[in-house]
Amino acid sequence: MKHLLSIGDLTPGDLDQLMRLTDRFVEVSQRQIPKVPALRGKNVVWLFYEDSTRTRLSFETAAKRLSADTMTFSVGSSSVKKGESLRDTVLTIEAMGVDGIVVRHASAGVPWQIARWLEDRVSVVNAGDGWHEHPTQALLDCYTIREARGTLEGLRIGIVGDVKHSRVARSDVLAFTALGAEVVLVAPPTLLPPSLAGWPVRVSHDLDAVLPDLDIVYLLRMQRERMTEHLVPSLREYTARYGLTRRRVEAHLGDDALVMHPGPMNRGVEISAEVADLPRSVIVDQVRNGVAVRMAVLYLLLGAGAERVLDPEPDMDNALDLAPGEALTEGATR
Amino acid sequence: MKHLLSIGDLTPGDLDQLMRLTDRFVEVSQRQIPKVPALRGKNVVWLFYEDSTRTRLSFETAAKRLSADTMTFSVGSSSVKKGESLRDTVLTIEAMGVDGIVVRHASAGVPWQIARWLEDRVSVVNAGDGWHEHPTQALLDCYTIREARGTLEGLRIGIVGDVKHSRVARSDVLAFTALGAEVVLVAPPTLLPPSLAGWPVRVSHDLDAVLPDLDIVYLLRMQRERMTEHLVPSLREYTARYGLTRRRVEAHLGDDALVMHPGPMNRGVEISAEVADLPRSVIVDQVRNGVAVRMAVLYLLLGAGAERVLDPEPDMDNALDLAPGEALTEGATR
Amino acid sequence: MKHLLSIGDLTPGDLDQLMRLTDRFVEVSQRQIPKVPALRGKNVVWLFYEDSTRTRLSFETAAKRLSADTMTFSVGSSSVKKGESLRDTVLTIEAMGVDGIVVRHASAGVPWQIARWLEDRVSVVNAGDGWHEHPTQALLDCYTIREARGTLEGLRIGIVGDVKHSRVARSDVLAFTALGAEVVLVAPPTLLPPSLAGWPVRVSHDLDAVLPDLDIVYLLRMQRERMTEHLVPSLREYTARYGLTRRRVEAHLGDDALVMHPGPMNRGVEISAEVADLPRSVIVDQVRNGVAVRMAVLYLLLGAGAERVLDPEPDMDNALDLAPGEALTEGATR
Repeated sequence: MKHLLSIGDLTPGDLDQLMRLTDRFVEVSQRQIPKVPALRGKNVVWLFYEDSTRTRLSFETAAKRLSADTMTFSVGSSSVKKGESLRDTVLTIEAMGVDGIVVRHASAGVPWQIARWLEDRVSVVNAGDGWHEHPTQALLDCYTIREARGTLEGLRIGIVGDVKHSRVARSDVLAFTALGAEVVLVAPPTLLPPSLAGWPVRVSHDLDAVLPDLDIVYLLRMQRERMTEHLVPSLREYTARYGLTRRRVEAHLGDDALVMHPGPMNRGVEISAEVADLPRSVIVDQVRNGVAVRMAVLYLLLGAGAERVLDPEPDMDNALDLAPGEALTEGATR
Repeated sequence: MKHLLSIGDLTPGDLDQLMRLTDRFVEVSQRQIPKVPALRGKNVVWLFYEDSTRTRLSFETAAKRLSADTMTFSVGSSSVKKGESLRDTVLTIEAMGVDGIVVRHASAGVPWQIARWLEDRVSVVNAGDGWHEHPTQALLDCYTIREARGTLEGLRIGIVGDVKHSRVARSDVLAFTALGAEVVLVAPPTLLPPSLAGWPVRVSHDLDAVLPDLDIVYLLRMQRERMTEHLVPSLREYTARYGLTRRRVEAHLGDDALVMHPGPMNRGVEISAEVADLPRSVIVDQVRNGVAVRMAVLYLLLGAGAERVLDPEPDMDNALDLAPGEALTEGATR
Repeated sequence: MKHLLSIGDLTPGDLDQLMRLTDRFVEVSQRQIPKVPALRGKNVVWLFYEDSTRTRLSFETAAKRLSADTMTFSVGSSSVKKGESLRDTVLTIEAMGVDGIVVRHASAGVPWQIARWLEDRVSVVNAGDGWHEHPTQALLDCYTIREARGTLEGLRIGIVGDVKHSRVARSDVLAFTALGAEVVLVAPPTLLPPSLAGWPVRVSHDLDAVLPDLDIVYLLRMQRERMTEHLVPSLREYTARYGLTRRRVEAHLGDDALVMHPGPMNRGVEISAEVADLPRSVIVDQVRNGVAVRMAVLYLLLGAGAERVLDPEPDMDNALDLAPGEALTEGATR
């Protein structure tokens, strides 16, 4: 595996390997010094053409725990403004000697284009391309569900809200169904894609009717812009029909059902403030697991091979052991 | 000590411990390789809702000398713009696994709010909240005075200028008086807080009358905005009455009195260019000591305990010794 | 050597030493873990008053491979906006304990001014000052030519385009001629400096006439602004006379001649897309060598002396050997 572009490129076996690799990095993250030298000397560049603090900080934390060096290519102050083509920007970054590029772009397909230019010389991670895909979000969602429920097999998951404009929804549908869950999309017709041909999902426009059957309610962020685009009459009416309120949870949702959200939340719109803070809400777990999942992805793409971590040979150093220099640092176990 | 929010939370004993801890980090800063592994694997986030280069760079230098990892949560390109609440932002940052948050915010009290949400799980440092407090500035000011004069006990310190809008003044008054100095505020009535009830200070509107008695003149930054708010008739008139000019220094100030300023200076307004460069001006020392003070604060909050540095047991490694791996680096003493 | 301000300060011997030092850092850059501890604990600040992503990323990669710490002084959110003088900004940065400042500024001469204020206490690297100089660009250009041709001695190099506004052209003319090349400037009169007195160059306004004699065509970036300033009638007419098109290359350029460009390119203006991708184009090599050249410069200014790398004594550790702690890292040769 050289790039992570789409969930669709991963077999259920790949997904399972990534989940097990993530287990190891969750363990690393809980150490007193949550840092291993696995990617020392590797250079990862954030190429973010769209604003993102959450995702960038999550990747950055992951990279630092693996001892990789990181740099930000800030588009605002860059050659892009001077008319440089995307291809020249990418080849320039490559020439500086990077090992991985984590890219976010407003246009669907850009990470594929970049991967094509770079062939197998530099790894590319899709951190969100337009409305298309956001594979590490889907991985952390799967991991969070697996952590809480043991497996996704047979679970019924409702994805609620603005599916049309959501790269999270596209990646989640692929990942959840690959791991054996059933997915139902719940949204007004204006917030669904024009065609769902080929999507392995059911569709509903009635949240209250769907809720009782769900093991997981996954709420999508509702953006204010949808109102000015006349896709919903008003946020208030959206909330009335599709917002996850306390009343709705108590009236319709099973006791064990979990609540998820990719963040940032608009409390009071797609989710009420009370519901976001219920014990059944695993939204903060999603953020926490995001770091470990991204450690697993970066390690898999740039590190010494998953088998070094998952099934080390008896006489081989495990890649997640501390290097001797590290072990002598204050605070480490001796 | 888990957070540093206000100087008011520190006893004179705490202040003294911080000063002695700073001594140790001044020594570290003078080494050929001014870097110790004390906070290796710790993750510190800068959460700056207000512009600040000086303070951020000072904290960042401090963190890097302690081998901590640092990340910037840049509000401009963040979830905040997408409507996320401050609490959700903070809980998201926590979930990523940070050990400390250094926060600057335009609203007084925000660091307390953040500390309340995080309880004792993550340390919070107030790097300036509105007009309220800026405790690390006060600590570096105390350290600078102590370095030059040995003690603050019995010193007479004049704080001159826009006290009303100054978090530096509030924190300095608390720290200077706790360590035994007498403080006089010198400003036009429009630049003083509406009430000074409970402030352990004297007030004067006449700089020339106060200067002869002072051991230290501490000038506050005069912002151009005060003129458009009609708090001063003009910067020129402000300078005429409250600016520290060479003529004023020569006519009124004692030979041993020091000149201080938190920076950035408006040369020609609150301080003349000549006075800023006099040998008695310790403004550059303030900046230099700021790094060591912030090392002490970060170490105290995130490190292995002040006693490891101040009073190590005979058979215990000192936390500021170089780790073996470091000692072998080129340039270190062998 | 304390600062790198101008190519004019370097003797041919200095240039040769820098080229040989760069050879060593090219070798380091090709290692599996391209990182050495040579500048561990050194603190380098980017002080960029003008946008630059390419140059900043290149310096940053170089610094990280040398294990230096780096920080960015971002002018947008800085004390500069609050009216601080450049000198106070620089003295503040010094007081925080930096070892090197890499500065880019829109005004010619600023790096000299900064070096004067700092004397020999902090090293200053000019990363571009107005239209004046860009010495590390010239060094990487020389290195790239030397890599491809063995020497610059006797080569004929044409620098084509907007020489008037180009700091690259000024530094390149000095470096190329110091190393024995002949330089001809090719541009319309409006894009040449008012006087070329003292420049050791020939001038031509006819690219087609010059091309057959050249070993190297060095194209300068053509900025759109030149059209609105009426220095060229239109970009299309500029391209027709001075753009390096495939037709022009095939009709006039010798088979061995190289094509160079400092980037970012305006494909279709000063260089056609096809020509930029010809095998004879070494534009990507320039970017790649830029990192190694900047490693050499930072090492020379901040490290333990060039002789430790170029002519180590038999019993002395070589500064580019891995430190023991590094050698035990996963992936390193054992």
